[in-house]
Amino acid sequence: MVIDIKKLIALMTDFGYKDPYVGVMKGVIKSINPNAEIVDLTHGITRHSVLEAAVNLLVSAEYFPQGTIFVVVVDPGVGSERRALLIETNNYILIGPDNGCLSLLIERDGVKRAFDISNSRYRLLKISSTFHGRDVFAPIAAWVSRGISLEDIGVEIDVDSIVKVSIEKPMYDLEEGIVIGRVLYIDLYGNVMTNVKADYINLIETKVGSRLNVIVGNSEHQCIYERSFSRVPCGELACYINSWGFLEVAVNMGDASQFLKVKLGDKISFKAT
Amino acid sequence: MVIDIKKLIALMTDFGYKDPYVGVMKGVIKSINPNAEIVDLTHGITRHSVLEAAVNLLVSAEYFPQGTIFVVVVDPGVGSERRALLIETNNYILIGPDNGCLSLLIERDGVKRAFDISNSRYRLLKISSTFHGRDVFAPIAAWVSRGISLEDIGVEIDVDSIVKVSIEKPMYDLEEGIVIGRVLYIDLYGNVMTNVKADYINLIETKVGSRLNVIVGNSEHQCIYERSFSRVPCGELACYINSWGFLEVAVNMGDASQFLKVKLGDKISFKAT
Amino acid sequence: MVIDIKKLIALMTDFGYKDPYVGVMKGVIKSINPNAEIVDLTHGITRHSVLEAAVNLLVSAEYFPQGTIFVVVVDPGVGSERRALLIETNNYILIGPDNGCLSLLIERDGVKRAFDISNSRYRLLKISSTFHGRDVFAPIAAWVSRGISLEDIGVEIDVDSIVKVSIEKPMYDLEEGIVIGRVLYIDLYGNVMTNVKADYINLIETKVGSRLNVIVGNSEHQCIYERSFSRVPCGELACYINSWGFLEVAVNMGDASQFLKVKLGDKISFKAT
Repeated sequence: MVIDIKKLIALMTDFGYKDPYVGVMKGVIKSINPNAEIVDLTHGITRHSVLEAAVNLLVSAEYFPQGTIFVVVVDPGVGSERRALLIETNNYILIGPDNGCLSLLIERDGVKRAFDISNSRYRLLKISSTFHGRDVFAPIAAWVSRGISLEDIGVEIDVDSIVKVSIEKPMYDLEEGIVIGRVLYIDLYGNVMTNVKADYINLIETKVGSRLNVIVGNSEHQCIYERSFSRVPCGELACYINSWGFLEVAVNMGDASQFLKVKLGDKISFKAT
Repeated sequence: MVIDIKKLIALMTDFGYKDPYVGVMKGVIKSINPNAEIVDLTHGITRHSVLEAAVNLLVSAEYFPQGTIFVVVVDPGVGSERRALLIETNNYILIGPDNGCLSLLIERDGVKRAFDISNSRYRLLKISSTFHGRDVFAPIAAWVSRGISLEDIGVEIDVDSIVKVSIEKPMYDLEEGIVIGRVLYIDLYGNVMTNVKADYINLIETKVGSRLNVIVGNSEHQCIYERSFSRVPCGELACYINSWGFLEVAVNMGDASQFLKVKLGDKISFKAT
Repeated sequence: MVIDIKKLIALMTDFGYKDPYVGVMKGVIKSINPNAEIVDLTHGITRHSVLEAAVNLLVSAEYFPQGTIFVVVVDPGVGSERRALLIETNNYILIGPDNGCLSLLIERDGVKRAFDISNSRYRLLKISSTFHGRDVFAPIAAWVSRGISLEDIGVEIDVDSIVKVSIEKPMYDLEEGIVIGRVLYIDLYGNVMTNVKADYINLIETKVGSRLNVIVGNSEHQCIYERSFSRVPCGELACYINSWGFLEVAVNMGDASQFLKVKLGDKISFKAT
């Protein structure tokens, strides 16, 4: 077997799975570079949720090969004056609108160079006002995968000018013994991932098998701190360090986001019982 | 990097994403031609909507490389006497049932040769009555991608015998100053694409930023003619030339098809205010 | 064209299409073997339905090339003590949790060797308690596709120790003239596939076009035995030998599972009228 490293292009959008939009982006890529390999990261991002896209990219990227080209099209401002970006981090190439969707990964990975590709000559000849995934981002990803040098594709820009999304960091209230976090992601099954890392949760002296209180608004719920949701009885609330390293709340065989009535960005706190 | 042009097979079905039907079609293709490259155009076509499939193929095909083999399986008549087709247009190979799903693209691209593959010896040995995607269309696509000559695969037929779908062309009523169109497609987000091209809409002296009336049945709604839906306030009705070149109506951050109560094929008209 | 047989990795999960979980598994595979080819069998398995996964794998596998590596991640017991398996059948490599999801195919294909990979050194370095698709099953599939010998990957185990799912076989009640089956699968459109094969249905002297009674609980419904659902009028109940060779009940343009009020595993019987 010959290992011949091909550039991988990973796509993430909020286009869903009904329309031919993602398929057409792949057609564009394959027209420019028949050798490009394309992987779907997901197309199920909640419509226009830049924060959800940014979080997904942050947790997913490290599992892809060095040099992977990520194309993120969650783009509520398409057709406005928002810039289109091409970012070279220390590990990856990121392509997408300048609305913050790339910013969490940028912050962690470190940027080598950043480019404005809004008027790149590597876009398609005809540019629509509503589908830059097809007209700008896909073709530029394909040209990058063919090895065109980045400075030929865009105009270098100051990293500090890139739009950022931010999530309040978790906090520990020593007096009350409470870790105060935020909802970072809710998955298909209603599992509620927070921005609380294991070292925070250790502050409230939690051991596997012990009980915690989860506080959302004025409601307080008991849950069991476990290694996984499958460790608690069906229908009961569990919390555990999830596969990305964040504290997550789930109902075994149920939907924790509905049970807790939380949405992305909401405050969610944890306290020893 | 060696550019080694492989035949691309693009799949479009109404199978959705729950069942293993699409995966099995890919298994069949890979069993016959391990080198075939497969792209999903979409599997979200509304069940049995031949017109929707035809429209999607029409707008999408031009973004794929010349020579792409399109397999369309939207096949309410599977198990009946309807023919199975293999069409060589001036740009592509089209494979699917003879129910009109290929006809809009055929009309635009021009046909070089058309074949009946209903009894092709390149089908699987065992043919079911309900899954020709697996038993007929996928294997024939795979054999075409291996370079088998088309006349060995099917029996040449008269192009005029192919079943067509048709959509009334838009009309301009000079007296009333109304452009009368039809709903051509409704996407996941409820954006309503019509069959009205930009040159029709110019007849009613519309400028970007001006207002139009959208007429559906007895209802008339004001909307803003813009470059994209993101240019109007949230919850408001916008119309714009969409990324395929057709007039489209959307509600910014909302669902225009629900708001207007329209479905595929419905009459939808536009008038200056 | 050079035919260069690459190892195909086919993925089946209950992860659905919203989250980046499947995409991340592909990133892991591509990081280990950039030449691996990945096909999605389906990610729409009903959450935690081991039986549904087992049935899907059973009917689908034969359409894939010999040597295909199937990765099945329907894993309600992730984080518990259940084993992780690598099975070499006479035709394929199967990878997944030891909960029965591989067992129906194993039973038919015959096992050459079976391995416990729960503690394989080919897992990722950091193993989470909730996402073995990423941390165990995907990396091991990738290493297998690179040609690592199976005995280096896991510890050989006794085939008889593998957890099995079972479905009661259909039965023929000679006195009543009834074939008693079970619901084996319900597809996206509500078509109800049973475990009744054609030879059973022949026992009740059924000819294409004749009527049968379908019995579920205390309800009895007439349906037409046909070659496919498209042969009966819209809204009517049809039964036919489906594309996998099993008796299936459908409502033309409707949802038979809702009409009959059945779910996976339910008893469903057939009787001549």
